[in-house]
This record gives sequence, C-alpha cells and structure tokens, in this order.
Amino acid sequence: MTQLINVNSRSYRLSSAPTIVICVDGCEQEYINQAIQAGQTPFLAELTGFGTVLTGDCVVPSFTNPNNLSIVTGAPPSVHGICGNFFFDQETQEEVLMNDAKYLRAPTILAEMAKAGQLVAVVTAKDKLRNLLGHQLKGICFSAEKADQVNLEEHGVENILARVGMPVPSVYSADLSEFVFAAGLSLLTNERPDFMYLSTTDYVQHKHAPGTPEANAFYAMMDSYFKRYHEEGAIVAITADHGMNAKTDAIGRPNILFLQDLLDAQYGARRTRVLLPITDPYVVHHGALGSYATVYLRDAVPQRDAIDFLAGIAGVEAVLTRSQACQRFELPEDRIGDLVVLGERLTVLGSAADKHDLSGLTVPLRSHGGVSEQKVPLIFNRKLVGLDSFDRLRNFDIIDLALNHLA
Amino acid sequence: MTQLINVNSRSYRLSSAPTIVICVDGCEQEYINQAIQAGQTPFLAELTGFGTVLTGDCVVPSFTNPNNLSIVTGAPPSVHGICGNFFFDQETQEEVLMNDAKYLRAPTILAEMAKAGQLVAVVTAKDKLRNLLGHQLKGICFSAEKADQVNLEEHGVENILARVGMPVPSVYSADLSEFVFAAGLSLLTNERPDFMYLSTTDYVQHKHAPGTPEANAFYAMMDSYFKRYHEEGAIVAITADHGMNAKTDAIGRPNILFLQDLLDAQYGARRTRVLLPITDPYVVHHGALGSYATVYLRDAVPQRDAIDFLAGIAGVEAVLTRSQACQRFELPEDRIGDLVVLGERLTVLGSAADKHDLSGLTVPLRSHGGVSEQKVPLIFNRKLVGLDSFDRLRNFDIIDLALNHLA
Ligand SMILES: [Zn+2]
Ligand SMILES: [Zn+2]
Repeated sequence: MTQLINVNSRSYRLSSAPTIVICVDGCEQEYINQAIQAGQTPFLAELTGFGTVLTGDCVVPSFTNPNNLSIVTGAPPSVHGICGNFFFDQETQEEVLMNDAKYLRAPTILAEMAKAGQLVAVVTAKDKLRNLLGHQLKGICFSAEKADQVNLEEHGVENILARVGMPVPSVYSADLSEFVFAAGLSLLTNERPDFMYLSTTDYVQHKHAPGTPEANAFYAMMDSYFKRYHEEGAIVAITADHGMNAKTDAIGRPNILFLQDLLDAQYGARRTRVLLPITDPYVVHHGALGSYATVYLRDAVPQRDAIDFLAGIAGVEAVLTRSQACQRFELPEDRIGDLVVLGERLTVLGSAADKHDLSGLTVPLRSHGGVSEQKVPLIFNRKLVGLDSFDRLRNFDIIDLALNHLA
Repeated sequence: MTQLINVNSRSYRLSSAPTIVICVDGCEQEYINQAIQAGQTPFLAELTGFGTVLTGDCVVPSFTNPNNLSIVTGAPPSVHGICGNFFFDQETQEEVLMNDAKYLRAPTILAEMAKAGQLVAVVTAKDKLRNLLGHQLKGICFSAEKADQVNLEEHGVENILARVGMPVPSVYSADLSEFVFAAGLSLLTNERPDFMYLSTTDYVQHKHAPGTPEANAFYAMMDSYFKRYHEEGAIVAITADHGMNAKTDAIGRPNILFLQDLLDAQYGARRTRVLLPITDPYVVHHGALGSYATVYLRDAVPQRDAIDFLAGIAGVEAVLTRSQACQRFELPEDRIGDLVVLGERLTVLGSAADKHDLSGLTVPLRSHGGVSEQKVPLIFNRKLVGLDSFDRLRNFDIIDLALNHLA
C-alpha cells in the first residue's frame, strides 16, 4: 500500500524509487535552450521522448532562500516565513538575518519524509542554506562549501571528500555546484536515499549569459549527471529557484537605481528605510543588487505620495503596498516593509550608493529578484499525469509532481 | 552660418561632416554587451573613450516599420501613421498593407534635408522599407535585396553590385545586412553624402541569441564597418528599431497564445478579429508571431468583458483600450483595433493556429513586438551635450542627437 504523508496541507505519496529533486540556482530557461542548441546537453535534448518539460512561476522576490524553502515546504513564504535574507524588526529597530531555522514557520517535506522512515539526503552548494533546509531533518545533510567538515554525527554521513574525489571547491566557482552533483551520485550509488534534494549556486549564471561557452560547459556538466542519475533508475525532477537577466546597458554598465539616495533627496535622511533582502554574506558577484526592494516609511512620509514618487522613477516596474504585495506574492506581512518596489527586467535596485561595493563586478551585472525572473523550468525524466488540477504551475509544486503525478 | 530645417515640429541643424545614422534591426542591447565580452567588437569596446552610449525606448509595437519611420521622421506613429505592416479598414472591411508611402502622414527628415540641398543616401536591407523611407526623397535610395536592379534614374546611383563587390545576398541571410554596410562604405568614400541612413535586417537576431558564435560574428562584422566610417571622419550614430527576446520554454518550444482561437471559443466565430501587425511577406523566421496584437470587436462583444477575458490569460502582459494604447504608445487611433494586447517577455501572440506556418522555425523562436523589447541602444562616436532637455530618450531622437547635440 502506498504510504502518504501530509505537510502544509498537501499530501505526498512516498516513492519506492529513489527520487532526486534538483534546484538549479538561477536557471533562466534560456540556459538550457541555448545549451541544447549548442549540442552540449544531449540528455536534456532527448528528454521529451521519455520525460516532461514544463514552465512554472517561482516565488517573488525571486531570490534563492525564499524559493528553496518554498520548494522543500511545498508552500509560499506566507506559510514558511522566509521572504529573503533579511527583514527589519520594527520592535528592535534592527535588520535581522533570516538564515537561521528559528525563522522558519513550517515543517519541511524533507523532515516529514524522514520521520515517515525514508532515507532523505540534502546537498547544498553554499552552507547558508543547509541550516534552513536541514531543519529537524534526521538524515544526510551537508554543503559542498564545508565538505571537509562533514561528519557522521552532525551530517549523517562521513568521508565525503574522499568519496567524491574532489577538493573543497571555492565558494565562488562552478566547481562548488559540480561537487553537489558528484556527492549526489556517490550517495545514490551507495546509500541510495529514497529522496534527495540537491541545490546548486548561481555563480555561473551571475557571470555568464545563456549560450556562452562558460554557461554551456556548466550545463554540459549538469547534463552528464542528470544522465547518470537517470541510468541509475532514479526519478529526476529539475527546477530553479529563479531566472536570471542582464541588468546592464549595451556596453555592460549596470542600470542601478539607488532608492535610498532618491528617497533621502525627496523626503530627507532617515525618513525612509530601503531594505534589500538579497543582501547576504556572499555578495561579491552581484554587489547585493537585485530587482526587488522593500521600503519602510516613517509616519511623516505619506504612503500615497511615496508610491507615486517611486512609481514615477524610470526603471521601476511596479510599487505595491504591503497588503498588495502580500496578496499578489503570498508573503508574510510581518516581514516586509510598507512598500515593495520591483525593478524592470534590465534594472536593479540599490539602497545608498555608498553601501554597495561594486568592486567584485568584474563582468557585466546579471541578477534577479523581480517578476522578470519568475519563469523557471520544471523538468522530469518521466511522463506526468493529472496536470489539469494545477491552475498555475509553481516551482514549489515540484515535489508534488515528482511524487504524485508520475504516469 | 548653421543652416536649420524644421520637420514635424522639431528643428535640425545641417551638419558639415558626413553623418551616418544606423538602425540595427532587432539589436537587443545584450548583443553588443556579449560581443564586447567575447572580444569580438574592439571598436565598440573602446568607444566610450571618445563617444557616448545611452539607452532609449523604441516605439511600441516594437516592430520594424513603425520604428524606422519614427527614426526618419523624429516623431511617433500618431504623427507619421505607420503603426505596423497592416491595419483593418473598417469601411472596406479589409486588412490593408501599410507598406506604401501613401499611408505615410508626415514628411521625413531625409526628404527635407535633400530639399535643403544636402546629399542624402538611404540603404536598406529589405526592399519593403525602401518605398517608405525614400518617400519624396531626391537622393540615393536602394535596398540590398534588389541591388541588382539599382539604376541612376530610380535610385540615384548605379553600378552598385560592382562597386560593392558582393553578389545580391539572400533575403534570409546575414550577408543582406553586410551588403548595406559595404554599400554605405562605398558611398561614403565616393559620393560622401552629407547624411546617410542605413537600416539592416534582424535575420541573425531572430535566429541567434546574444553571445552565440553567429551573433558575435555578425556584430564583429558591423564593428569593423563602424570603425571604417569613424576613420573616414563620419559622425556615426547607432540605434535599433526594437530589441529581441527568446519566446520559448527551456527546450525551445514557442510559447504561443492563439488569440483568435481563444476569442472564438469564448464569443463565437467572427465576433472578433485579431490582427497581427507584424505579418508581412517575409515571415519565415518568425512565423508572423510577435508579442503585440490588436483586436477588433463586433458590437455584440462587450469591451469590458473582452478585456477581462484577455487579461486573465496566462502569458498576456496587458490589455489596453484603443484610447489607452494611443495615449501610452502615441499611436494613430484610426489604424488600431478596439483593444491592444501585449504578450509577456517569453510569449508571442498568434491569431488562429491554422493561419500560422511554423515550418520555417528551424531554431527556437526569438521575436519582438511587446514592451519587453522596448529598450534599445543609442550609440555615438562623439561626446554629446544638452541631454538634460530629454525627459525620456527615444530611438527616434537619434537624428536630433546626432545633428544638434554633438559636443
Ligand atoms: Zn538563487
Ligand atoms: Zn525589426
């Protein structure tokens, strides 16, 4: 009899075949399309013969953590609470880092599967996600970034460096993601987990456009692992946390709106607070610049006036009130500001110019965060059934699709 | 004393140096950016040292003819009348091709310059534009497509094939555009026109993404001509008629909304008419599919209901009434339908599925027409002054910028 678990008001069938859900960080669909065109990804090129390729919407803000958490909870940020890397705590008047599991408001499907007796494994590229994704998970959970520190007690597995046969990669490298796939293959062929969640980093996508040699090489590497997983009999389900777009002009200069400077000039210093939830300890390749910002207003600043002011700035795609944003994007009301500002496809939003270190931008800026990066692929190495029940496919439907909708 | 001419309520200083305005068809800014990154366009890479790189908005619908006509008239379609290749004539109940100069409602700057005694030359890739661009122009005007038919009486020049030293290129080729640049160079070094307008075709951009070898090679070719023009002492001003985006999913299948089929299913056959103004005699590489459509409603179809129906379709970015569209995009009221529908960045709008021949789509669809293709480059081989007077730069400001704003 098929065992079912219930998590965040959705039910999931436990699979008898190993199931691997892969979140390819920053996978704008065009990366795959161009790699196929260049003949670099033969497995993906042939996949529609036996598999399924769909498109879904990711969570906005189209950032890494909100989307990874949505994928592993099967729910939007209004349920799990993680809507960025930072929020502003009105009581303590401090910007609070949300990388800690105590900010997570919902159980993960991963932890619930493990409780139901499944062997669950999670491998992330960066260590910052491991803490959130591994919350209350009794199973295997480690990051490529700290692969040299992996031990049985803490991570449920040991000796990973030797098993993978790669040194610990730089946190700013394509190798960091390759390590995730190589570790996944080692787990698949040895422990053979019932369910694996693999999550990469978008270092390559921030630096290289679809169809460029570097991007194609990265997708060729992934393609070879997808093929190996497929040949090992795994169910393989691939999606992305968000897309990725150029944020520059014709000669690669970034299009940046420094919202805090603009608001200070309009309303005076310290009348508003611009918070960029993309900000995190690893900002070298994007300078903490994305196409989403949230703004906190002091009482003296009239909301309607601020909305009109911000909406009138060239490069701003939309300005929403907290309640509009929470309704449209399913966000937690207590963790966003009075306003949400979205940048147009080619524009990123900064706070104050002097708060951004752009020295790490050695190539033209590519980034994400807005609605322009909402479309992501949903790819399966099996035919699916029962898709009519979805009004709108989301990236966080992927575990449901992989477990409940195989033909 | 500097001579001034007045055209469509703007004044233009006549230049003493040869001025070349180039419309690179379908030049999404990212093509230049990626070609620079790949080291393929050394002239453009170095240009900011002595020149100027800006971004402007093209005309929506982001199609070829409306934008070429806006560039040469310095005015939006509400002034010159050309808002696509087709409109629907309510009196005769027929779809009318607007490729004939009789539909042009404004004089061109080109013709007025020639009247003022300047030697003006126009070279287009496809012949369809020649008739419109050359309207009432006493000067040189021919297309690469029909270069073998060029004669002194009709085109103001002769013996072009021998002068250029290239055979007549295929209308579906990168060579068609290269012929334009080679002919421009021959004119520059022989007749040395006071003003030249060169207009290419987006065959390459419809087929190849920014950063791919084919796109980079095309931009390398153009870069070498820009450099030659610069070295010959010309003022060089480069813009685009529109950008270009992928319109597909992760494996290159087009995202098409067949609006006529959807409307027929909702309201019954012949209650609405979907017109695609991108339709033209050269549709092989895009199947007449772009991200803009206009819809004519019969009386029995309530407008409010149709707007809600269309706006609710996934992939539709916006639905505007005729008056909203005419105000926002400066379009002629009598040449668009009751509604204007815009597709999202990755989505194109079709009429009925059986009216589109997609057999020519041998590579994943890339196209234009929507607001997502509105950002285009404005590039000059000189420093500019007096840009503060522009609230919002448009591609059709380029002649003003090249003639009136040189430092
Ligand atoms: Zn990410
Ligand atoms: Zn065009």
